[in-house]
Amino acid sequence: MTFNHFTSSHSSSLNCGKSQHAKRFSVLRTSIKALCLLSLANFSFASEPQATPVNSQINSDAVEKTPAIASNTASWYQVPQSNTVTFKTAYGDVVIALHPTLAPKHVARFKSLIDAGFYNEQAFYRVVDGFVAQAGSNDTHDASQFPPTLLQPINAEFTQPLNSNVSVVENKDMFAPNTGFLDGFPVGIDKSRKEMWGLHCPGVVAFARNSEKDTASTEFYIVIGQAPRHLDRNMSVVGRVLQGMDVLQKLPRGNMDRGGVLDDITQESKIKQAFVHANNVTPYFLQTPLHEEYKKRANTGRNLDNPFFHDNTYGPRPIDVCYYQTKTSDKAW
Amino acid sequence: MTFNHFTSSHSSSLNCGKSQHAKRFSVLRTSIKALCLLSLANFSFASEPQATPVNSQINSDAVEKTPAIASNTASWYQVPQSNTVTFKTAYGDVVIALHPTLAPKHVARFKSLIDAGFYNEQAFYRVVDGFVAQAGSNDTHDASQFPPTLLQPINAEFTQPLNSNVSVVENKDMFAPNTGFLDGFPVGIDKSRKEMWGLHCPGVVAFARNSEKDTASTEFYIVIGQAPRHLDRNMSVVGRVLQGMDVLQKLPRGNMDRGGVLDDITQESKIKQAFVHANNVTPYFLQTPLHEEYKKRANTGRNLDNPFFHDNTYGPRPIDVCYYQTKTSDKAW
Repeated sequence: MTFNHFTSSHSSSLNCGKSQHAKRFSVLRTSIKALCLLSLANFSFASEPQATPVNSQINSDAVEKTPAIASNTASWYQVPQSNTVTFKTAYGDVVIALHPTLAPKHVARFKSLIDAGFYNEQAFYRVVDGFVAQAGSNDTHDASQFPPTLLQPINAEFTQPLNSNVSVVENKDMFAPNTGFLDGFPVGIDKSRKEMWGLHCPGVVAFARNSEKDTASTEFYIVIGQAPRHLDRNMSVVGRVLQGMDVLQKLPRGNMDRGGVLDDITQESKIKQAFVHANNVTPYFLQTPLHEEYKKRANTGRNLDNPFFHDNTYGPRPIDVCYYQTKTSDKAW
Repeated sequence: MTFNHFTSSHSSSLNCGKSQHAKRFSVLRTSIKALCLLSLANFSFASEPQATPVNSQINSDAVEKTPAIASNTASWYQVPQSNTVTFKTAYGDVVIALHPTLAPKHVARFKSLIDAGFYNEQAFYRVVDGFVAQAGSNDTHDASQFPPTLLQPINAEFTQPLNSNVSVVENKDMFAPNTGFLDGFPVGIDKSRKEMWGLHCPGVVAFARNSEKDTASTEFYIVIGQAPRHLDRNMSVVGRVLQGMDVLQKLPRGNMDRGGVLDDITQESKIKQAFVHANNVTPYFLQTPLHEEYKKRANTGRNLDNPFFHDNTYGPRPIDVCYYQTKTSDKAW
């Protein structure tokens, strides 16, 4: 089973209910017309031979390795189980991949809080449709139950030194000199500053904080709407949802007169249990932009070179990495 | 009551449960720290006096009227009831504003289909998390029950002549020379081509079609994830959701091995009833970018000029109009 519901709009296995062989032509059939309509918009003809190699069609900067740093050519990043966490809710499980390189202190705190049972029976108590689902205790926890070191403020980790595993995807982003992925996690990249940082794409997980910089402690949020990119470089990003975006979308929304905080917490908003994955359970994988499927998908996004598109006035087009995210899966393929 | 759940992430009335007077300082209080965290990210201090007028802080092109065309200075667009439609579902109502100027034939068809009862008991039969909710009959309707003119293909209406009511918000968008709003509907703008077109922002409603250009007939989709901007200028956009994005997010998701089409349609996916609003019901309003609240919000997005932000390395920043959408309401304020 492939968990592609999150990045599923970009599925290359979209066959409109027909066989792989027949799919290219089946879209014309009246009986299945409707269901194939938008499918083609993200359809990369992954099974078709391409006359022109993908790499020659994209910008030279499109999927390059950052220069002068060691190259990782893997098309999948295996998320260590120790950096995989699950939040069980009334609607199902939300599974999150953490990347300590993005915010080592915050990731360590997050896992320690989970291990200590801090989030169990706490809630997604602030949910703003199209923005974020925020979880934690809302300062209702009993501080005496936890070691003080688990609750104290953490120094901000807004940006990090540029890492050797970063792959650049785009150089025409609106909010960063470059965008791309670190091991499948969407990042902003500034080569001249030698910096990288987690991007606020849908599914990204970060620590909430007070107005001051170094004030994050236990609260976290998950982006559930159009990327709030103004938060980039201003928050400590810890990870990305692997499975369960549809679960988050079902959560009760809050009262907008209270900034999206729910008036009443019911079982539907509760975190039943949170845990870090044991080393003996099946690991998750994050696709990297070096995967052929990603390169083909991004290439189609740049050039709209399939029969569904009739207007490519502004092509070749840039890639919004928050739309063209890499896939998540429970196996490498 | 203000229906700001859709664009609610940008609420100016975010007071963290404290009084308007106290809110600026209340964010420091430990007891309400958590719930105010991200609130500030979209907080425009609307009630605070600003030393510098908003307009002087933004790009000259930021909120300008298109030149040489008559000016509309209204801060709200009242959606005619005849262009307001409701889809009743098991999870609540989805209310949509239509704008005939964007796609006159498609809007007329949509309303005729609704009036004919075409969508009643049909379903959101294809729902892809983070992408679209698609509705219609999936060619399961009985064609003999409807006039042939209601079912025949419609000529594409991908772009329209640039309209006098368009307000430009951004000139550094990734996918269009300019972006802005037509009466509160997000649009791409090309002054040199004298064209405009509906943007695929979250909440936007458009007609699905087959691979060929002029093949839309009865199916429609609503964007429920990160803006799929590659569809811009390639689809006929008819409107924008006024209320009920949270309803759409609850809909059952489809089978990704079938392109997101549901294996089984249950009552949860069904459209109980669709109707065009009568002229005697309360009208809805769409905020325009000329509204002071929008200008302040966009200005904060450009300059990050509030105490929550500590890094503005790339400021002034462009505006993603799909994030900075104008608000919807059932009254002008």
